[in-house]
Amino acid sequence: MKTARLLLLSLALLLAGRVQARGGDPLPSWREGPSKQAITAFVDAVTTPGSPQFVPPAERIATFDNDGTLWAEQPFYVQGLFALDRVRALAPANPQWREQEPFASVLRGDPAAALAGGEQSIAAIVAASHAGLSTDAFQQLVRDWIRTARHPQTGRLYTQMVYQPMLELLAYLQQRGFTTFVVSGGGVDFMRPWAEQTYGIPPQQVIGSSIQTRFELRDGEPVLMRLPQINVVNDGAIKPVSIQQHIGRRPIAAFGNSDGDLAMLQWTMAGSGLRFALLVHHTDAQREWAYDRSSAVGRLDRALTEANARGWTVVDMRRDWRVVFPTP
Amino acid sequence: MKTARLLLLSLALLLAGRVQARGGDPLPSWREGPSKQAITAFVDAVTTPGSPQFVPPAERIATFDNDGTLWAEQPFYVQGLFALDRVRALAPANPQWREQEPFASVLRGDPAAALAGGEQSIAAIVAASHAGLSTDAFQQLVRDWIRTARHPQTGRLYTQMVYQPMLELLAYLQQRGFTTFVVSGGGVDFMRPWAEQTYGIPPQQVIGSSIQTRFELRDGEPVLMRLPQINVVNDGAIKPVSIQQHIGRRPIAAFGNSDGDLAMLQWTMAGSGLRFALLVHHTDAQREWAYDRSSAVGRLDRALTEANARGWTVVDMRRDWRVVFPTP
Repeated sequence: MKTARLLLLSLALLLAGRVQARGGDPLPSWREGPSKQAITAFVDAVTTPGSPQFVPPAERIATFDNDGTLWAEQPFYVQGLFALDRVRALAPANPQWREQEPFASVLRGDPAAALAGGEQSIAAIVAASHAGLSTDAFQQLVRDWIRTARHPQTGRLYTQMVYQPMLELLAYLQQRGFTTFVVSGGGVDFMRPWAEQTYGIPPQQVIGSSIQTRFELRDGEPVLMRLPQINVVNDGAIKPVSIQQHIGRRPIAAFGNSDGDLAMLQWTMAGSGLRFALLVHHTDAQREWAYDRSSAVGRLDRALTEANARGWTVVDMRRDWRVVFPTP
Repeated sequence: MKTARLLLLSLALLLAGRVQARGGDPLPSWREGPSKQAITAFVDAVTTPGSPQFVPPAERIATFDNDGTLWAEQPFYVQGLFALDRVRALAPANPQWREQEPFASVLRGDPAAALAGGEQSIAAIVAASHAGLSTDAFQQLVRDWIRTARHPQTGRLYTQMVYQPMLELLAYLQQRGFTTFVVSGGGVDFMRPWAEQTYGIPPQQVIGSSIQTRFELRDGEPVLMRLPQINVVNDGAIKPVSIQQHIGRRPIAAFGNSDGDLAMLQWTMAGSGLRFALLVHHTDAQREWAYDRSSAVGRLDRALTEANARGWTVVDMRRDWRVVFPTP
């Protein structure tokens, strides 16, 4: 009994330490200003017991786009670069690709030409690079790739191309009782192998695009095979649909950076009670990239107009963020 | 500082109380015997630090079928009875239904004749009863119905037709760090409005069948409209597919009662490390129902054969359960 008391006392002292630590700034990479102020005011209002806008923990759902919101998407979506690497890796086993588009262009080192065929070309590359293997095998492929592949311009690992201020924001919300979800146009099985370690978001809280899979018994052994057909492209007006299907509860906060996130932000803000919508505006050509209304990747046009009209929080990356990427 | 210490001491004492309370039997409605023993031995093995079969909390995923596993499914699936009630409620606004099958049979009080048309009839009833309204409106409909509708034979609310031993099992797993999911052939939006209160399972941990929905702006107001097309029927070989899509992690424990759960149990048991599969066998004609290999609802045939061959836990409801339904 004495030992149990001592253990509990140690626990109590530990807890006291944590309470003190929480007194520090939870968002040190955010400069003081309207964006940071809007975030903390919202979180305080919905999490402080007795606040008129208090929201019970179970309803504190926050959804985050991934590409351009949590990690960089320039010069091209990371998953696209994974697909090109995979086509190159599979080329020796597929000699016919040297004569066959879109693969021939990829192998010649001209991905722009490969994508000139539009959706059909993309579908062919996705099928070749993402299907025809089991879900377990694909997961291992992604793990191996993300551990070693490096960004073509910065030379960093892609898991080091995440935004430090957004990592702090995720941790802050999680500490304040939010359940945080990724809701991305990226492939769900491409994000899950590294999202838990990188974002603190477990696989069941990652929602994304997917291809069809089929349950099979192979020599009595159950496998899930990845088929070369698209199941869902989780972008634009599909995001609220997939949020409803997957979460079944309307978020009270949503975070995006492009027109593909507009419907998610609209859906979030249309609920009752206090709500929060934020767009990351890429304004920092020096430390990251600067792009918006006319960008082919991550276009931010209609959503920026609507955010300004409705008073949603628009992060000016250059001004609002003290640092962009984590210190390696 | 003194106050803080006192608060923490109170917390410590509270925790001590909980630890003591946990010493009691977590499964009082389960009679001592091989089923109960198998459950607690598995849970102890995967949750006790230092155990060779220890599984970290993030990987403690448990999936439960609903109809016939967590609540009764006889004489017919509860959601089917909801659909029939809804057809009757909508009949005055649809006078043509009196001449039109399958609705005419429903309105004549002959659901068996209504279902004689097979899948096409079911699809027509689902479309009429589950579509053509917003997700918010449908949720409210289900809430209102489940609060008042009663089982045709027992006169109980359906949320009182859940199995007390399974409620204890859910709570036991949740207390031991498991994340519990419903993986049902039932409609996901039919289960979510009451699953949180009844099972302690939040909406994002409910996986089920669904119809298609569409995001629309109606007078600038975003809505998700339920369309009269089936999206997915979450049964049989689709269960592992939806588990992968929704959870992205293989369960370490799975609970079912029919052949529709066999693939889920196979998928669960084929993973590495210690795993657990359980079938509820309905053997209690007196307190519930007795049915298995030849039942139209909840047929348990191939799965029973495989469970016996592989040594999975098969609950004999009559012997293993001290009580079936909760005391009202």
